[in-house]
Amino acid sequence: MKKELAAFQGEPGAFSEAAARRLLGDGVKTLPCPRFDAVFAAVANGQATAAIIPIENTLHGSVHENYDLLLRHKLDILGETHVQIVHNLIAPPGVKMKDIRRVYSHPVALNQCLTFFSDHPELERVPFYDTAGSVKMVMTDRPAGAAAIASATAAATYGAKILKKGIEDDPQNYTRFFLLRLAQPEPADSASATEWKTSLVFSVKNAPGALFRSLSAFALRDLSLTKIESRPLKGRPYEYLFYLDFLGHADDPASRRALDHLAEYADLLRVLGCYPRGI
Amino acid sequence: MKKELAAFQGEPGAFSEAAARRLLGDGVKTLPCPRFDAVFAAVANGQATAAIIPIENTLHGSVHENYDLLLRHKLDILGETHVQIVHNLIAPPGVKMKDIRRVYSHPVALNQCLTFFSDHPELERVPFYDTAGSVKMVMTDRPAGAAAIASATAAATYGAKILKKGIEDDPQNYTRFFLLRLAQPEPADSASATEWKTSLVFSVKNAPGALFRSLSAFALRDLSLTKIESRPLKGRPYEYLFYLDFLGHADDPASRRALDHLAEYADLLRVLGCYPRGI
Repeated sequence: MKKELAAFQGEPGAFSEAAARRLLGDGVKTLPCPRFDAVFAAVANGQATAAIIPIENTLHGSVHENYDLLLRHKLDILGETHVQIVHNLIAPPGVKMKDIRRVYSHPVALNQCLTFFSDHPELERVPFYDTAGSVKMVMTDRPAGAAAIASATAAATYGAKILKKGIEDDPQNYTRFFLLRLAQPEPADSASATEWKTSLVFSVKNAPGALFRSLSAFALRDLSLTKIESRPLKGRPYEYLFYLDFLGHADDPASRRALDHLAEYADLLRVLGCYPRGI
Repeated sequence: MKKELAAFQGEPGAFSEAAARRLLGDGVKTLPCPRFDAVFAAVANGQATAAIIPIENTLHGSVHENYDLLLRHKLDILGETHVQIVHNLIAPPGVKMKDIRRVYSHPVALNQCLTFFSDHPELERVPFYDTAGSVKMVMTDRPAGAAAIASATAAATYGAKILKKGIEDDPQNYTRFFLLRLAQPEPADSASATEWKTSLVFSVKNAPGALFRSLSAFALRDLSLTKIESRPLKGRPYEYLFYLDFLGHADDPASRRALDHLAEYADLLRVLGCYPRGI
């Protein structure tokens, strides 16, 4: 079997890398990419065997950009996991809390730790390109009095020390990640997991009751939805894309009939993948 | 009438400020706030008369944080608008394209202009706290060879010059903004606009068909949905929040009956506001 290499967007130590370890094991080799389209391309051109992408966050919502890329590329979703976004104050070994004067991180991370900064008015916030990248810089350049805010994975990746754990304002901050691979000729065996989930995208013409009719395909077969989201298509005001997840494998008899039924109403219908329900 | 003051998150010249002008007129006074909760608080405590908040973006999805704040505060949605996110290369007057060496902006904006940067490999990208703030800094400190990436509004706000318009990779980048005010004792007159929209949040227990039944309240009355989105409630695995927008005013007879019908199924139901459909 080809050696596993998982592409992700960001610097080593990013939250996506933590998701890669949870989905593919601690020993997985990873390939950092600058952009999401480069992540998809790395799998499409055979450079990587898998991709790990964030698909939704409990504070910021769905990543439409990655849904778009799922539609443009022929990769299948084969797994999901939810990673809690925990921000930590991180510094080189030997540096103490009282030494810290400047804190580097991505502006989004700095903005999610405002309570910490109001408790420490002596600390200057310095925006940086990337959370994990800020740990790398603090460890490599060792600017005096510098710390970073990033994941525990980033601290471990660069041999840095966590000075203070969990300094984010809102601990209910989770990101859901997908594991993607090249589309499989053989469908996964639906008997090999206790609970399956299927993700799909469909579009219907905008008319009163159009979505209601579409959902009847699932409701009439007692299939349980775990996600539904409409996406207005800019420039096509009377059309919508819907993202839908339901519990079941697309090859189950009830699921097959539901998908056939939905296809009667949908202009576009694409199953993005079937995978064991993740935690 | 009290003089209008619109609170928004960000620095003067932010995209939210452009939304404020579209919703409240070019002369509107604005109040920059550091965080979204400060924007809501400014209206709740009477410091500002209105709030302007981003609610969804065509690339990044819904801003759940602001839906949460809508549920926590008693503000009504009274308007919506869609602002195209256009990134421009901006420098002090007199500075020419060939003088530029470093480009400052928020990392998200820098990452949305990668084609521009690959066409200009001589330019260094420098992450900054805020798009509009980067224009302010470039104009105030005048570092040699420095430019910023931000909105045309930001350029105008600080008297800077646009060197290159629309340098973003994906022009289909729109943000939808809401106009909020303190909850009104008198509902708005539904006859005063040709097309109304109503936004609401509801929750139902997770069971097969629960959403289907909920949507029947609208489908059976030929009411057209323009948005539906489920939000999993972390820590409450069998409950979902739904965001729903439909065309109509909550005081219309059919809408009233639909909302009464939906209330039979919903554990929580809150109309967030009725407002003229925005462009």
